[in-house]
Amino acid sequence: MDSAQFREFGKAAVDLIADYLDNVRDRSVLPDVEPGYLHGLIPDRLPDKGDKWEDVLADVEKTIMPGMTHWQSPRCHAYYPAASSYPSIIGEMLAAGFGNLGFSWITSPVCTELEVAMMNWLGKLLNLPEDFLFSEGGRGGGVIQGSASEATVIALLAAKGRTIRKICQNTINSNENDIRAKLVGYTSDQANSSVEKAGLVGSMPIRILPSNEKGELAADTLQEAVEVDIANGLIPCFVVAAFGSTGTCSIDDLESIGPVCNKFDIWLHVDAAYAGAALMLPEYKHLAAGLKYADSFDFNLHKWLLVNFDCSAMWVKDSSHLVQSLSVDRIYLKHQRQGQNPKAPDYMHWQIALGRRFRALKVWITLRVYGVDGLQAFLRKQIDLALQFSEKVKNDPRFELSVPPRMGLVCFRLKGEDDVTKMLYDRLMARRKIFTVIATAQNKLIIRFCINSQLTEKKDIEFAWSEISEQAMIVLNNNEPMVNGKDHRMTNGSDEKIDF
Amino acid sequence: MDSAQFREFGKAAVDLIADYLDNVRDRSVLPDVEPGYLHGLIPDRLPDKGDKWEDVLADVEKTIMPGMTHWQSPRCHAYYPAASSYPSIIGEMLAAGFGNLGFSWITSPVCTELEVAMMNWLGKLLNLPEDFLFSEGGRGGGVIQGSASEATVIALLAAKGRTIRKICQNTINSNENDIRAKLVGYTSDQANSSVEKAGLVGSMPIRILPSNEKGELAADTLQEAVEVDIANGLIPCFVVAAFGSTGTCSIDDLESIGPVCNKFDIWLHVDAAYAGAALMLPEYKHLAAGLKYADSFDFNLHKWLLVNFDCSAMWVKDSSHLVQSLSVDRIYLKHQRQGQNPKAPDYMHWQIALGRRFRALKVWITLRVYGVDGLQAFLRKQIDLALQFSEKVKNDPRFELSVPPRMGLVCFRLKGEDDVTKMLYDRLMARRKIFTVIATAQNKLIIRFCINSQLTEKKDIEFAWSEISEQAMIVLNNNEPMVNGKDHRMTNGSDEKIDF
Repeated sequence: MDSAQFREFGKAAVDLIADYLDNVRDRSVLPDVEPGYLHGLIPDRLPDKGDKWEDVLADVEKTIMPGMTHWQSPRCHAYYPAASSYPSIIGEMLAAGFGNLGFSWITSPVCTELEVAMMNWLGKLLNLPEDFLFSEGGRGGGVIQGSASEATVIALLAAKGRTIRKICQNTINSNENDIRAKLVGYTSDQANSSVEKAGLVGSMPIRILPSNEKGELAADTLQEAVEVDIANGLIPCFVVAAFGSTGTCSIDDLESIGPVCNKFDIWLHVDAAYAGAALMLPEYKHLAAGLKYADSFDFNLHKWLLVNFDCSAMWVKDSSHLVQSLSVDRIYLKHQRQGQNPKAPDYMHWQIALGRRFRALKVWITLRVYGVDGLQAFLRKQIDLALQFSEKVKNDPRFELSVPPRMGLVCFRLKGEDDVTKMLYDRLMARRKIFTVIATAQNKLIIRFCINSQLTEKKDIEFAWSEISEQAMIVLNNNEPMVNGKDHRMTNGSDEKIDF
Repeated sequence: MDSAQFREFGKAAVDLIADYLDNVRDRSVLPDVEPGYLHGLIPDRLPDKGDKWEDVLADVEKTIMPGMTHWQSPRCHAYYPAASSYPSIIGEMLAAGFGNLGFSWITSPVCTELEVAMMNWLGKLLNLPEDFLFSEGGRGGGVIQGSASEATVIALLAAKGRTIRKICQNTINSNENDIRAKLVGYTSDQANSSVEKAGLVGSMPIRILPSNEKGELAADTLQEAVEVDIANGLIPCFVVAAFGSTGTCSIDDLESIGPVCNKFDIWLHVDAAYAGAALMLPEYKHLAAGLKYADSFDFNLHKWLLVNFDCSAMWVKDSSHLVQSLSVDRIYLKHQRQGQNPKAPDYMHWQIALGRRFRALKVWITLRVYGVDGLQAFLRKQIDLALQFSEKVKNDPRFELSVPPRMGLVCFRLKGEDDVTKMLYDRLMARRKIFTVIATAQNKLIIRFCINSQLTEKKDIEFAWSEISEQAMIVLNNNEPMVNGKDHRMTNGSDEKIDF
């Protein structure tokens, strides 16, 4: 393929995306396929001869679309959003087109420097404490990770390194292996499963502490667990607080658990994957107050800030702990000033991988096209749509809100036993008109309804409510499950953690 | 921005990429900027009002290009390639446009199923042993990771889990922490630094064993190290073999080290990040023979197979070790058959992150447009260009080849002491006409010259050789370093490991 063909292919692909998004509302949000659907649609091995691009592009509709769950559909209300926006799509393509990597400054100065600039833009936008930002003489700074999971792993490794180095400095004849075996992390039962996974990756057991009736990790619960562990000779090292939990978007009270972490010298990581974006709104700014106690903070632009996956923004107050925990070439670092230069951090020491895509480009393009006003308007619109939906729930005596609506998320259920909510949910999934997921809050089944797509409008909320309301009537009248072999597999079992 | 504006913006961006690649040869491959260049070119914070897309796109030339190292330039010969191709760029944009995630089957069946199909296509293309492929009743399979570094971490965690479970099953009252503290990994001094980093992440010390005169890890060196560790009460667990090392593209002899790993029940991971693609060529197929001893294998399409970063293809013979080591919800897995279904693996348990981009799409598009014949022709052309370059080195009495050329890589130096090679290298970097990196092989400084860009032609080899030859003449005549404050920072110190 030469550049002339690329121009044709690329423009046809731009139109295909525009057509897709223009009409995605009309597609069934969930696909009607069984596992293995693709087998038979494509050959068993790569053919010898290449295909024309026209044929490949035509196969997108025939081969790809039948198996697609349409995350960008305005009728997708499951999980949290997978963000997207027109400028971000183009930013991703441009980065692929330039094909440059930026793992150290020289490998592509603009990759590093634009990322530094964007992390400071975002930090200011979110009203983060100043010591999270890059500054002359400061140790703070931000980095784009691939996911909140990776950010949690990185924070855990930094916490571990900090604790081990501190004890080794203070204790003669300390044995690193002995220390490592005693480290413990903490989070609440409302945290994303990625926290436990980070514990598996980084070899640190994570205690899953019970949340209170608001779904929050209470300071006394944390303090008690820490004190018991210390009494048993263990070393508390790491806490992950949820800023917008996966189930109900609950927010741990940083102003009470932060001081506990600081008192016991425990690294506090704040996982704000979804809800963090709201900190740019004056009406939510007060939630940032407790961040002064945190050591690291992460939120996903790829969830609620219009930049497509992957783009997880992570800040730390003292980047030296990251670099020391992840750098395998410390002598080299001592020789060079780049690692300490806030204008040119060696980002390869801030993450697990060495290579890194030019993700700052799509951030720059997206933020510039929207501006602060556009971003705020987008978030407020989504919050308002969620409120409109929650009003419908509240005004219908058959339903109850499980928790107050928060950000773009509404958690609700049919009054009464779980089985009616489960029947309603199974019907919704079998009909594939809207896509929601089921979860548990305070030991009751709930349906999570999130405003996901940038394309969602008032009419989509009305469509969803009419579908839910209608199916609820059938469930409540018949009180019988829909019998359909396929449906069970399509649902998320109630014992599944909602993880995105 | 609405879809009509997106169509305009997207098409303008397609043209911008095509223009960029059409003319990238004429840009200086290295940028002429100092750290901090971006400061002043962009505001300190995001403005309130959004910008027109036309203005943002125009700023790409003004703001982004001055700080770009042009990896796609046919005059970029540093590191290993950052792959790119026209179809892959479009594949990346389409994936961003569809904006779907596929961490479990239901979240987007096509994401999972196309990845399964592509991993089998690639496995067959590379002549991998059949037990690495997905098959009915088999445990093998492949997954797209973000980088070879991540693949090494995953392999290490799987190895660790397998060893710990085995010992716990066989030993009454075994203590997991005690076992963990005794695990050891091995690799050679030619391995990529990501192996050591994986050890940091997964808390397993990695022994860096000396390579032999061919730059390979010898079986007796490995066996001796393993036996010493066992005698000292440690538990050998994990070996990473280099299939195309970072410095000189050396290939560890899997047929001799494989049996050592198997004998001591050590997980053998083969890191073929760059060179793995060559296994599709009949003339290199014999190198795959030793893979029968391996537990996992990884190569980067984003290095030498025309798919842009990130796209690292990893296979394992027994995926249950991955899933068991990375799954935090084992009860759930037992309830569902999806995790065991080769048509629908839950890829979230095969990687660190939960979310995942639809990377299989760009693989499918790229492979189809090229076909087997097109891919083989591409690799052979690059190998031939490297051979042409190595002939020039060989025929010039001032120079010597440090090792025989391998794949697209030529390692050479000026005869005599290191300082003349260093002076030559510093001149080349200061002039910015071509981009190479410096490394050490057998205790001598070498210049690594790799055929990186899909756009590289015979004329570029001739250009590079004329530049090198001319600068060598100046160095050998004057024997004086170029004095220029900027240049030192632009170079890679000779003590830096070449990591990509």
